[in-house]
Amino acid sequence: MNTFGRNLRLTTFGESHGKAMGGILDGMPGGVKIDMDVILRETARRRPGQNHLVTARNEKDIPELLSGLTDDMVTLGTPIGFIVRNTDQRSGDYGEMAELYRPNHADFTYDMRYGLHEARGGGRASARETLNWVIGGAIARQLPCMKNVSINARVITIGGISGSPDELAKVVEEAMTRGDSVGGVVECVIDGVPAGIGNPVFGKLHARLAQAMMSINAAKGFEYGDGFAAASAFGTEQADIFSSEGGHIHTLTNHSGGIQGGISNGMPITFKVAFKPTPTLLRDIETVDKVGNTRMLKGKGRHDPCVALRAVPVVEAMAVLVLADEMMGGYQDEA
Amino acid sequence: MNTFGRNLRLTTFGESHGKAMGGILDGMPGGVKIDMDVILRETARRRPGQNHLVTARNEKDIPELLSGLTDDMVTLGTPIGFIVRNTDQRSGDYGEMAELYRPNHADFTYDMRYGLHEARGGGRASARETLNWVIGGAIARQLPCMKNVSINARVITIGGISGSPDELAKVVEEAMTRGDSVGGVVECVIDGVPAGIGNPVFGKLHARLAQAMMSINAAKGFEYGDGFAAASAFGTEQADIFSSEGGHIHTLTNHSGGIQGGISNGMPITFKVAFKPTPTLLRDIETVDKVGNTRMLKGKGRHDPCVALRAVPVVEAMAVLVLADEMMGGYQDEA
Amino acid sequence: MNTFGRNLRLTTFGESHGKAMGGILDGMPGGVKIDMDVILRETARRRPGQNHLVTARNEKDIPELLSGLTDDMVTLGTPIGFIVRNTDQRSGDYGEMAELYRPNHADFTYDMRYGLHEARGGGRASARETLNWVIGGAIARQLPCMKNVSINARVITIGGISGSPDELAKVVEEAMTRGDSVGGVVECVIDGVPAGIGNPVFGKLHARLAQAMMSINAAKGFEYGDGFAAASAFGTEQADIFSSEGGHIHTLTNHSGGIQGGISNGMPITFKVAFKPTPTLLRDIETVDKVGNTRMLKGKGRHDPCVALRAVPVVEAMAVLVLADEMMGGYQDEA
Amino acid sequence: MNTFGRNLRLTTFGESHGKAMGGILDGMPGGVKIDMDVILRETARRRPGQNHLVTARNEKDIPELLSGLTDDMVTLGTPIGFIVRNTDQRSGDYGEMAELYRPNHADFTYDMRYGLHEARGGGRASARETLNWVIGGAIARQLPCMKNVSINARVITIGGISGSPDELAKVVEEAMTRGDSVGGVVECVIDGVPAGIGNPVFGKLHARLAQAMMSINAAKGFEYGDGFAAASAFGTEQADIFSSEGGHIHTLTNHSGGIQGGISNGMPITFKVAFKPTPTLLRDIETVDKVGNTRMLKGKGRHDPCVALRAVPVVEAMAVLVLADEMMGGYQDEA
Repeated sequence: MNTFGRNLRLTTFGESHGKAMGGILDGMPGGVKIDMDVILRETARRRPGQNHLVTARNEKDIPELLSGLTDDMVTLGTPIGFIVRNTDQRSGDYGEMAELYRPNHADFTYDMRYGLHEARGGGRASARETLNWVIGGAIARQLPCMKNVSINARVITIGGISGSPDELAKVVEEAMTRGDSVGGVVECVIDGVPAGIGNPVFGKLHARLAQAMMSINAAKGFEYGDGFAAASAFGTEQADIFSSEGGHIHTLTNHSGGIQGGISNGMPITFKVAFKPTPTLLRDIETVDKVGNTRMLKGKGRHDPCVALRAVPVVEAMAVLVLADEMMGGYQDEA
Repeated sequence: MNTFGRNLRLTTFGESHGKAMGGILDGMPGGVKIDMDVILRETARRRPGQNHLVTARNEKDIPELLSGLTDDMVTLGTPIGFIVRNTDQRSGDYGEMAELYRPNHADFTYDMRYGLHEARGGGRASARETLNWVIGGAIARQLPCMKNVSINARVITIGGISGSPDELAKVVEEAMTRGDSVGGVVECVIDGVPAGIGNPVFGKLHARLAQAMMSINAAKGFEYGDGFAAASAFGTEQADIFSSEGGHIHTLTNHSGGIQGGISNGMPITFKVAFKPTPTLLRDIETVDKVGNTRMLKGKGRHDPCVALRAVPVVEAMAVLVLADEMMGGYQDEA
Repeated sequence: MNTFGRNLRLTTFGESHGKAMGGILDGMPGGVKIDMDVILRETARRRPGQNHLVTARNEKDIPELLSGLTDDMVTLGTPIGFIVRNTDQRSGDYGEMAELYRPNHADFTYDMRYGLHEARGGGRASARETLNWVIGGAIARQLPCMKNVSINARVITIGGISGSPDELAKVVEEAMTRGDSVGGVVECVIDGVPAGIGNPVFGKLHARLAQAMMSINAAKGFEYGDGFAAASAFGTEQADIFSSEGGHIHTLTNHSGGIQGGISNGMPITFKVAFKPTPTLLRDIETVDKVGNTRMLKGKGRHDPCVALRAVPVVEAMAVLVLADEMMGGYQDEA
Repeated sequence: MNTFGRNLRLTTFGESHGKAMGGILDGMPGGVKIDMDVILRETARRRPGQNHLVTARNEKDIPELLSGLTDDMVTLGTPIGFIVRNTDQRSGDYGEMAELYRPNHADFTYDMRYGLHEARGGGRASARETLNWVIGGAIARQLPCMKNVSINARVITIGGISGSPDELAKVVEEAMTRGDSVGGVVECVIDGVPAGIGNPVFGKLHARLAQAMMSINAAKGFEYGDGFAAASAFGTEQADIFSSEGGHIHTLTNHSGGIQGGISNGMPITFKVAFKPTPTLLRDIETVDKVGNTRMLKGKGRHDPCVALRAVPVVEAMAVLVLADEMMGGYQDEA
């Protein structure tokens, strides 16, 4: 349940208000030079408190790598253990909330699942868990098989509006001003994946990407290529006609989003992930407590009004983990 | 790669033009009375040739259950092996296509993955594989833990148009007349799942459903609850306010689609799956052959113009397999 | 629970008194020519009724391969489904036993595990299940990576006595005459495995072999290299001194049994498996029934007095499955 | 490869000469009070430097638990991450050895597997890894389902000699005096496991125990119940006759070692593990270097002359992990 991947496996631990987050990345080959700056760059991208649009929590998020590497940061082929201490917890902020079920949070469902949400599981629902994923992804990104692969995610709409980053920022600011939050869509384009990556039946590349993306907090939908728009189209409109230039076969269009039959076709892999608005609001909202009494939940805390913004490096990290897993284990059947 | 599930595992085999399809359903408890009529009803729902809208292949699709059951059809707690003979193959129909890459099919990608698509893997891309899933789902549906769970999928739009079944049929007929195909969206509503089913982190219920649905042939997108629409909304619009009646806590709205934090909240679970148009067209289309020469692919064969129609029982079967797996293994941590 | 392996996975089903045994071998690469005679030869080796020393059950044990192969028996890279019909069941023979707990059988423990041994699980304890393993092994044995690997098992002692096959047969015959059964040790020597196969920590080659061999019915012990004798020795006696001839490094002795640190060293891999006497006796024995009454179990049925004899091809098959799994997936970390 | 278990999973990392050892224990239920003293007691039992018979390395081996627990040490139902810093490394001691293949060590096989043993994998062959297992086992031992289970391992023979602890110590001392090492056998007796724990086919309880025990450094053999002695016996001698007293069915003898058909029968579970002599000797020994030149390996370093002695708590820890895994997940099929 806390492990992702098959050939390259990330197992994670940590509650946001506990001592540390951390994980074990198992399956990395030996001899890979790891650049710590890449890891710090990626964790910085998802770090809260970068600007006024995201939460003010201000942890350093600097991982300590504990194993699997030589002194000069070359992988040994053994599991890479890492931890990040939690330094800025202020758990008091959440004190009152512990008695109430916050709407659209996991409080109620964790209670139903585990019996008591403070005592069990609760902390694993925090978006801080994705820090572990970003660290794992930042290491895996440095695999030789990923060298020619570029993975670029960005927010394309917020609150249903598309536009320049400045325009999108305005939508978020307006929501903030009202103590509200707002949803958004992240698009990811992956270049450089050769044709032939993925598997049939239950191992389809897009199915694994779907599972990976839907694991990210607040994700509500996934589509690849033309996605839901393809469901409104005719076959003649969707046909990605093959063409051959200098022996290289490609398609003239990319409605398929780079994946056909669960396997990459060499075109850019494109997918989108829908994120709901942050469920925590900075204004009062009605709810119930654990015994079913109606209560008023006061808006406070430090939360991003638009989780889609911070999800960008997480989407990339999960895409890295899926692709590295597939590309490392690829062609196993050519025994 | 050919196994789905953790506590309840379906492993499948079979090429559409080979001797038989089949599978092993492992993890069924003992003492469950299995009604063969349920299995036959479900396989009949997905069978080609039911009416003029779906392909004319006319196999009987009657599974033979080979193990795991007493003579009077009570499970033994041992793996249930089953096979379905392929009786109507007409592989000649595909003879010419074997040299060409059909647009939007898996021909090209399987070639890239396995080296030669006739010889390897190709047959596993056939939608006939989903017969195995429907059989597995029809058995799992009869588990005691599924007794109060009702899973109902239906096509809600075809070619972007919503309407009554008759209206939707007209859209398909018009596409057929032109030798074209058309996409559609299947919605699934699951009632009766108690609160507390699912897992945090990498085992989220909606992430598993996403993976399951995206494994179905021609699926292009998955969303649950308000899905992509939630990404255009504000937090105040999406809040599912809790209410308590007679000690039973529920939400007044269901934007969340019955799942919060990856765990069911007792409300109906709702999700949608987008299916692209059938890639096979009944009119000529340009493509390339294996050495890159431009060729004309003649439209023929027997294929559904709208895969979304036949996907309905497959969506249900995969939903059964996910939920049964979770509900059987549920609450493991209460050791 | 009914699946063995990681890269090459065998999943099996079947009760000895049900319709059929069968399995799915998943992970075979494409392009491998399969010789049906090899499969028939191996199943014949474990077949009951070959001579007067083994049980008189006389099934044909001819597997039908249902998928994963072209018409001329070349693998497609897809899962290979197979079944073997049970044709000679005579379940009446076991009628009386169903009420009694046979000593050293799984009757009592299956009852404790599943509640009712006739109804659940019981049939999976039959040695007939190993037919599935022998079929899986006979296919895997034909992998290109196994071409230079020779796996040879043989009975080395029966009833504590070593000697020629004729001498060993005499020990069995004497036990038969008395209605008794007798234990034996099978030794397996594997040549041709290159150095570097296996994994550290929880994936050690000898630990996987141990698990595989201890899965065989009636196995009571496993040792590799000098095994238990090494526990009585001094380090100076056990040192396998390295030597180099023409650049090829090998050891002068092989106390290690070809495996050091869980990884093959290029020397022959040697291990032994201890099998207890067949628990079924052909003479009367005291036991209890399900409600605890003392009863007399009458000796009858058709059983091998020495399971070690029929275990020989099963030991080889399981060794094939372990080695093929490791050699196919080997060197994954050299991404 | 670095993960053990199914319902309760221990994933580990760490090189003996790196920054830290550590692991993640995933699958612990919530609400279990953890006693840190139990963990410290178990790690102390395996710690080097306890007396003159074991190596002089003197690390504190105090684990830091980083997640999965409340401040007052009650499990949250989330993964428990832990680390132990390596404080006493003296890696210089091994400097010269890095160029030579030490007989019966993993140096040569790791080189063959990974290409270069200093750079890859090598550190995972260290017995220090078993510290992680002892920590995992010490936590799992505190599960409610383990409360009535007592697991007791002890060395029963050293160098083939049985006797009192003092007598056995003398055998080790004599070997030490000569710069030699010596093998030993550890016996483990497990009381309190109810009948019905384990699984058929590939999940047999004794097969899992075999794999677990053979994963321990220097293990060469495993047997349960009468083990190899059963292979020298007749069926009449091995029959564990059932008897019923006050409705409680048990066997009058325990040749089966508490397991029949892969499932516990309620009698004590008994097994033995053979450990070879420590391969490192404190006297000079001939070997080759990486280019095949004959070299003399000087005896030095700090190593146990008899690994069986320190293996005792490791045998118990692995037995705990197997049994807890089975008992937590037990009876899954009673859905």
